[in-house]
Amino acid sequence: MSDVAESEATRSPEDWWSTAIIEMKPGMIRYRGYAVEDLIGRVSFAEMVYLMTRGELPHPEAAKLLEAALVAAVDHGPQAPSIAAARMAITCGVGINNAMASAINMLGDVHGGAGEQCVALYNAVAARIGDGPADERRLAEAVAAEIAALAQRGIRHVPGFGHRFHPRDPRAPRLLELVDRAAAAGAVSGRFALIGRAVEARLAADKGRPIPMNIDGATGVVFAELGFPPPLCRGLFVLSRSVGALAHAFEELLSGERNKGPIPRQLIWTYTGPPARELPRDRAGG
Amino acid sequence: MSDVAESEATRSPEDWWSTAIIEMKPGMIRYRGYAVEDLIGRVSFAEMVYLMTRGELPHPEAAKLLEAALVAAVDHGPQAPSIAAARMAITCGVGINNAMASAINMLGDVHGGAGEQCVALYNAVAARIGDGPADERRLAEAVAAEIAALAQRGIRHVPGFGHRFHPRDPRAPRLLELVDRAAAAGAVSGRFALIGRAVEARLAADKGRPIPMNIDGATGVVFAELGFPPPLCRGLFVLSRSVGALAHAFEELLSGERNKGPIPRQLIWTYTGPPARELPRDRAGG
Amino acid sequence: MSDVAESEATRSPEDWWSTAIIEMKPGMIRYRGYAVEDLIGRVSFAEMVYLMTRGELPHPEAAKLLEAALVAAVDHGPQAPSIAAARMAITCGVGINNAMASAINMLGDVHGGAGEQCVALYNAVAARIGDGPADERRLAEAVAAEIAALAQRGIRHVPGFGHRFHPRDPRAPRLLELVDRAAAAGAVSGRFALIGRAVEARLAADKGRPIPMNIDGATGVVFAELGFPPPLCRGLFVLSRSVGALAHAFEELLSGERNKGPIPRQLIWTYTGPPARELPRDRAGG
Amino acid sequence: MSDVAESEATRSPEDWWSTAIIEMKPGMIRYRGYAVEDLIGRVSFAEMVYLMTRGELPHPEAAKLLEAALVAAVDHGPQAPSIAAARMAITCGVGINNAMASAINMLGDVHGGAGEQCVALYNAVAARIGDGPADERRLAEAVAAEIAALAQRGIRHVPGFGHRFHPRDPRAPRLLELVDRAAAAGAVSGRFALIGRAVEARLAADKGRPIPMNIDGATGVVFAELGFPPPLCRGLFVLSRSVGALAHAFEELLSGERNKGPIPRQLIWTYTGPPARELPRDRAGG
Repeated sequence: MSDVAESEATRSPEDWWSTAIIEMKPGMIRYRGYAVEDLIGRVSFAEMVYLMTRGELPHPEAAKLLEAALVAAVDHGPQAPSIAAARMAITCGVGINNAMASAINMLGDVHGGAGEQCVALYNAVAARIGDGPADERRLAEAVAAEIAALAQRGIRHVPGFGHRFHPRDPRAPRLLELVDRAAAAGAVSGRFALIGRAVEARLAADKGRPIPMNIDGATGVVFAELGFPPPLCRGLFVLSRSVGALAHAFEELLSGERNKGPIPRQLIWTYTGPPARELPRDRAGG
Repeated sequence: MSDVAESEATRSPEDWWSTAIIEMKPGMIRYRGYAVEDLIGRVSFAEMVYLMTRGELPHPEAAKLLEAALVAAVDHGPQAPSIAAARMAITCGVGINNAMASAINMLGDVHGGAGEQCVALYNAVAARIGDGPADERRLAEAVAAEIAALAQRGIRHVPGFGHRFHPRDPRAPRLLELVDRAAAAGAVSGRFALIGRAVEARLAADKGRPIPMNIDGATGVVFAELGFPPPLCRGLFVLSRSVGALAHAFEELLSGERNKGPIPRQLIWTYTGPPARELPRDRAGG
Repeated sequence: MSDVAESEATRSPEDWWSTAIIEMKPGMIRYRGYAVEDLIGRVSFAEMVYLMTRGELPHPEAAKLLEAALVAAVDHGPQAPSIAAARMAITCGVGINNAMASAINMLGDVHGGAGEQCVALYNAVAARIGDGPADERRLAEAVAAEIAALAQRGIRHVPGFGHRFHPRDPRAPRLLELVDRAAAAGAVSGRFALIGRAVEARLAADKGRPIPMNIDGATGVVFAELGFPPPLCRGLFVLSRSVGALAHAFEELLSGERNKGPIPRQLIWTYTGPPARELPRDRAGG
Repeated sequence: MSDVAESEATRSPEDWWSTAIIEMKPGMIRYRGYAVEDLIGRVSFAEMVYLMTRGELPHPEAAKLLEAALVAAVDHGPQAPSIAAARMAITCGVGINNAMASAINMLGDVHGGAGEQCVALYNAVAARIGDGPADERRLAEAVAAEIAALAQRGIRHVPGFGHRFHPRDPRAPRLLELVDRAAAAGAVSGRFALIGRAVEARLAADKGRPIPMNIDGATGVVFAELGFPPPLCRGLFVLSRSVGALAHAFEELLSGERNKGPIPRQLIWTYTGPPARELPRDRAGG
């Protein structure tokens, strides 16, 4: 709550809700200028994601990369808090939309933010090396400078690299392969694939062991090549993971389970608080 | 909270979280049996939705219909509570995932349930007419019986038909056209397009004016043709609308607005409660 | 989406948002007619809950019962999906409000609905026996009839009775004791304590073993004595459980844990889907 | 996702979910060491909030201050995104818990964070002036330094001061009066009331007009006097506002409204995107 923006007092409801995304009249719906009935059956769901968030239809090669990145992150099993939450929620008697919302609500800075943070890192490196052809030494220096900047802000784990479960994340090399192909075909610059690999190389050198690019680092390369601003990258991950949330919520719905907690019936926690005690004397009555 | 299922006490955490969706080992991720790196770049996002929720890859024509339905429902503007919620939430200082969750959490029985309810209606009609070729009279009778059954349960508005804003919903005829084409090509049965149109005809006859099929009635035809069970239909709508939620949340984020309520600064409500009054005498001190 | 209510088109934003709860002008806030500065320091938080939801301040004895019921349900440990969700969410990097929302979002019909359902049951029994002094036989018949009605609707577990963890729920007898005392003092009717005990007696007779009243059955007695309509009872449980959600979210925040899933690192699920397989030949390229 | 904490791999589920808040055995529930049946009927709901979050029961005067702060922030009408969201959600056909979660999910850094940020500010000032008796000049210098520090971080609106709707927030002076009284009685130090007023004085001097303490500034004084760490202050605001969310959700439920958007039926937004256009030629078929 703060001082009033001067403009607010004089704005109409129409201005308050202005948007460049959708235009509507009775019997007419247009997204970004295109009639909905022209889009249906002519653009893919992934292309629609691009149109809605970016304002224009993507180049077909860009659309393919976006499809690939959206496919790659749908699910990481009940180990992931998001997926566990979707399954738990459905057993609590809420709607499937509420279960999906519960999953998505967990994709915060730690669980869902690495892709966004990684694209910000790639963009920062790209800004340092400027627009010309990427000189190897300048790239290495820019990468080192940005990793150092993260460390100074207390960020030990470079977002997009290393994985606590997968020694090598099987999704990353495949996504990079597709980016390389698109770059070879001139559909994207390939600049961010270079940057991503330079980060990976630097981390290996720094730590003396591979810290391979993970799903967030690889989808980050795709999203950066496609020009998505960082906050949209979080959103794209949400769209992808929502598919897994739906599949798991539905599977759990079929199970008929009720009130599913983390593990079965047995008491699951260690109590570390004060031992049993009595209320202070002045409360003991009543 | 209820009596213990006998089985629960003896189940291991592994059994507690059993799933047929994802298999994982360090360095390996498989969805429904397919290695993730085989899927990336080879199946579309919509096909992935199908694989994850149904267990098998869709026929290419089925995939096209699913794309069309997912494209059709992405957004209905800030008029829709879901979209308004996404925009309001982002101005409250939460993450983009929280804003999307806020939107999705609103897709309840009333706002997001018509598709699901409509597929249930179509399925009930289909069950009445059985598997043989659809005889026109039997179809009409089955439709009348199911509409009557809804009315008996107090449901005045047949889900999937009529729209409070669009006299004719521009999305419906286009979706039906695609279903007809797929049916002509033998990719789907076309049975549910017939049923949907029979419901539309019956409603027009009953009310003496057209109550045209809307987006939910038309995506319902698509989903029923593709064999999606009703609760998944709600989930598919959620996936679709999530795209609009993301686009609007991001547009609002760029606006820099803070604490955006329904309309601008002016007081927006009529107070209908008791007039100003004083606390009972025994509370007046202090 | 449905036909337009005629009235909607002609309503102003002020009418759209009419409320009897709060009146506001610059520098003035009144709840249910009372100036906020008169309430602060003179009514308890529980009394404020009553005033906001019911429109009037409670009798002091009613306020005490409400306090007792709100105290009783704050927490049931990480076994409860709501509490587990609060803790998991906070490790995902969302705000403490988002973690609390994640918890509360899980208090659906199964996890949070028993109190509401139980009050509906008590009210149905009360309606059967009418307003006069409760005759023991008529009470027993009314209870039997309503339990039979639940069974006919497929409800095996009578809401508010039996517990999968506690052979006897320690919260129930204490709450009943307080209701008895308030009834003896004439502050409440005691009618619903009778009804609750009659349900308990009937279930024991039916099953041949005690199915004791649990927290939902006992808070249900309190809420019914106080005249709360069933949907508000769910809301009161939400307010109570929110306290536990906050305490657990904060404790987990201090732990510094990241991405906390159901249990530690080891793979936690059994895969039951198809064995590893290859994509159909026509997708294998790319 | 990051490197594995070494410890994680070897932790049991019991350790994974350790807590000092609740101890439970079949038939036994203890909160912070106290048996639940001892607490019920002997501590108020606000005292329970304190016990659960802080680990000990509050001093009676501290409990009164906490009650006052919890009472003060319950509702700010449908102008507030949280309250509007609760009302909109319930008309979408979700449960009352989902509607409350939708409200609470909006209490992010901007909408719900000012109290937390304000307590952090007060604590920073307190740390500067140290433990001795507060010398007026040192206090003024400490306040000026911390306001300058906020400005350097780009924070123009000092959290807890000024209000876009209320020229003077009626809740603030009343809360301060209660703190003064408790300080006079020796129940709290009164140190943070001094700091809050010093911030107010400094802002008035800087801006040449009063920027009075608002609800967040005043509850911030209460919470800081009571020693609540900043993240818990957000949580306390959530608990308070949940009461308003419940009252409004229930009132809206009774209205029977469906799919309630920001304002009634009329189109509510200005479209600012591209004019109507056709799909690129290569998509026009199909």
